Amino acid sequence: MDGTLLVNCALSALGGFLSYRMIKEFIPIFLQRGMHGNDQCKVSNDKVPEPLGVVTAAVYLIIMFLFIPFPFFQWTTSEIDKFPHEKFLAFLSGLISVCTAILLGFGDDVLDLRWRHKLMFPTLSSLPVLMVYYVTNRSTSVIVPKYFHFLLGQQIDIGPLYYIYMGMMVVFCTNAINILAGINGLEAGQSVVIAISVAIFNIVQLIRLESQDWYHYLSLYFLLPFIATTVVLFYFNWYPARVFVGDTFCYWSGMTLAVVCILGHFSKTMALFLVPQVFNFLYSIPQLFHLVPCPRHRLPKFDPKTNTVGMSMSVFKSRELKPLGQFCLAVFQTFGLLHRREFERDGEMWTEVNNLTLINLCLKLFGSMHERSLTILLLSIQAFCSCVAFFIRFYMASLVYDVVH
Amino acid sequence: MDGTLLVNCALSALGGFLSYRMIKEFIPIFLQRGMHGNDQCKVSNDKVPEPLGVVTAAVYLIIMFLFIPFPFFQWTTSEIDKFPHEKFLAFLSGLISVCTAILLGFGDDVLDLRWRHKLMFPTLSSLPVLMVYYVTNRSTSVIVPKYFHFLLGQQIDIGPLYYIYMGMMVVFCTNAINILAGINGLEAGQSVVIAISVAIFNIVQLIRLESQDWYHYLSLYFLLPFIATTVVLFYFNWYPARVFVGDTFCYWSGMTLAVVCILGHFSKTMALFLVPQVFNFLYSIPQLFHLVPCPRHRLPKFDPKTNTVGMSMSVFKSRELKPLGQFCLAVFQTFGLLHRREFERDGEMWTEVNNLTLINLCLKLFGSMHERSLTILLLSIQAFCSCVAFFIRFYMASLVYDVVH
Ligand SMILES: [Mg+2]
Ligand SMILES: [Mg+2]
Repeated sequence: MDGTLLVNCALSALGGFLSYRMIKEFIPIFLQRGMHGNDQCKVSNDKVPEPLGVVTAAVYLIIMFLFIPFPFFQWTTSEIDKFPHEKFLAFLSGLISVCTAILLGFGDDVLDLRWRHKLMFPTLSSLPVLMVYYVTNRSTSVIVPKYFHFLLGQQIDIGPLYYIYMGMMVVFCTNAINILAGINGLEAGQSVVIAISVAIFNIVQLIRLESQDWYHYLSLYFLLPFIATTVVLFYFNWYPARVFVGDTFCYWSGMTLAVVCILGHFSKTMALFLVPQVFNFLYSIPQLFHLVPCPRHRLPKFDPKTNTVGMSMSVFKSRELKPLGQFCLAVFQTFGLLHRREFERDGEMWTEVNNLTLINLCLKLFGSMHERSLTILLLSIQAFCSCVAFFIRFYMASLVYDVVH
Repeated sequence: MDGTLLVNCALSALGGFLSYRMIKEFIPIFLQRGMHGNDQCKVSNDKVPEPLGVVTAAVYLIIMFLFIPFPFFQWTTSEIDKFPHEKFLAFLSGLISVCTAILLGFGDDVLDLRWRHKLMFPTLSSLPVLMVYYVTNRSTSVIVPKYFHFLLGQQIDIGPLYYIYMGMMVVFCTNAINILAGINGLEAGQSVVIAISVAIFNIVQLIRLESQDWYHYLSLYFLLPFIATTVVLFYFNWYPARVFVGDTFCYWSGMTLAVVCILGHFSKTMALFLVPQVFNFLYSIPQLFHLVPCPRHRLPKFDPKTNTVGMSMSVFKSRELKPLGQFCLAVFQTFGLLHRREFERDGEMWTEVNNLTLINLCLKLFGSMHERSLTILLLSIQAFCSCVAFFIRFYMASLVYDVVH
């Protein structure tokens, strides 16, 4: 095993330990400064400190800064002919994007930013990563499935489109965790599941392929400290949550995943791991774009009598629904993905639908349940999707492509 | 003139405009979120939003991200033989340090961090800059004044000591602006004066020397957007302050200056521009290290009757003063740098000295004055020091060294 990776493991362990200590140290500080949220799915109304994600993110940055000198030392000594500038560039560009994502998230937690800020900032801050991709590996070719070779050849170069695709991947990832969120343990839990899946993928690739291993090392360098610090955060955020992770965590985590998949050249594989997030995003679109009325919060509804959470609803006058919204709801209903009830009140027809999130969909399909069970269910779905992703990546792909890397 | 520099100027202008718009947009948001401070040198007790420095810092980052593609495009097209990785590395490493400094500052404003966090974080985040310095220019030699050539040779290599010196420079710069602060317009004003001085120095060097011009271009790339955004912040922070800049600004500004002088290889010249900050630090040491009792705030004292500010005092029992503190005070007194009064109360001897900051020293030397006059006085001192720095750098140096770059 590579010595630098060993150092990374050791520093990750240190990062986990530091996170534990720092979260404990900062919980009273957050409460004292009035930085706390309200847990809407609890009987008690205790203040929960938020965003503790910024503490683990800061620990993560410290660990990364402590780590850089080790690969750097390896590069300056072992690679005799010349210093591998591209590797150092890849590392620094990734770190910039992660750092700006943390800053954006913390700003959002403290100041509640507008959507245009939240979309523009990650797009811009991913530019260095894309430029490094351009310098180190200009391949923008997509391998064509073998059944279409007669039509398109072995691979087609989609050029600038590939950069647009990667840019959109960054913006999607940065927001993906943030929109599948809201119950204890979910944000940190899903990130841990995805990050561990990616790390396993990297290790498998390192064992299978000797040649292109640097990318997978780089990915592990970023992911292992992330996993170590986030597991600790997950522990504190687990039901009943003693801390909230905040937008800071969501942006940080999303950007870390985006950066490793772009610098590691496995953005398509990453998309497979993100199937629940993609589904949640597509399912949310009618509400995100206000085709269907969207209440301020779409969290599940807490029932203090049974101590369970159930679907939360969006209720509106039926005639207020736009045609396009009507169409989306009809599609969802056809596939059994929607709770819908029409009723009359004060001589007008009203419509009630569940809020369009994966969380509410689970509650529709499996009924009301305890909040902890809901988190476990959602994390199980995430883990199941990772298994399917591995199956598709390593087995199915060999049926469709001649060569699979 | 270089086309990329022209683009940088245009983007800087855009940055100034955006800063103006964003500060106006965010002032009510900050007040609404309860992010405000108290102006202790005013009759009225209006809430002043703080830290608006984070808004201009975010605009700065956006401008920098928008800018990177331009030099990048120039590098990929004009330098035919190979892509200049070192230049890109220098750019990214600088941006990382600036970005982490902003994050640290914002964290400090929101959470009031401890000293150990504030010293450790910039030290670590400057590592990439030092590593890039190592890769691109391993020179750690110091040129020896010609009178000592017979003793030490033309230059001596101080090796690792040079990196320690640069690391200390980063930590000093990051905190230098923060400890010479507290009255309307001072933080932003001194940063503007220093940054403009450095930019003039860069331009003079670009005109004088054709060879090593890249470093000075890099420095200007970082400084011009900084000047443009900070001038706008200065305008809002000018007496009577409508916004406070916060620790965010101080760390951001200090780190930007540190980064350009290290990547630009003119850290010794930078030290000349920072003479007021260095003096203020040295003068503060007895209180910073608690050799002399240090009250929580060392701001000048506001007199509502005359609407002026005067020296603030530290009052303590004479026997509580440690011998080392006694010694420091005696030294300051010898040079006329101290107000000191001994008096008896309740049968014990008490000592009253002015708080040891450059601001209070000015008030001792020139008497109480209006807060705006005090800012103008301090900024004039800063500008005067810049003039002296130019004189030393370009005239005196030629007397001591044979070749001056
Ligand atoms: Mg938010
Ligand atoms: Mg502070």
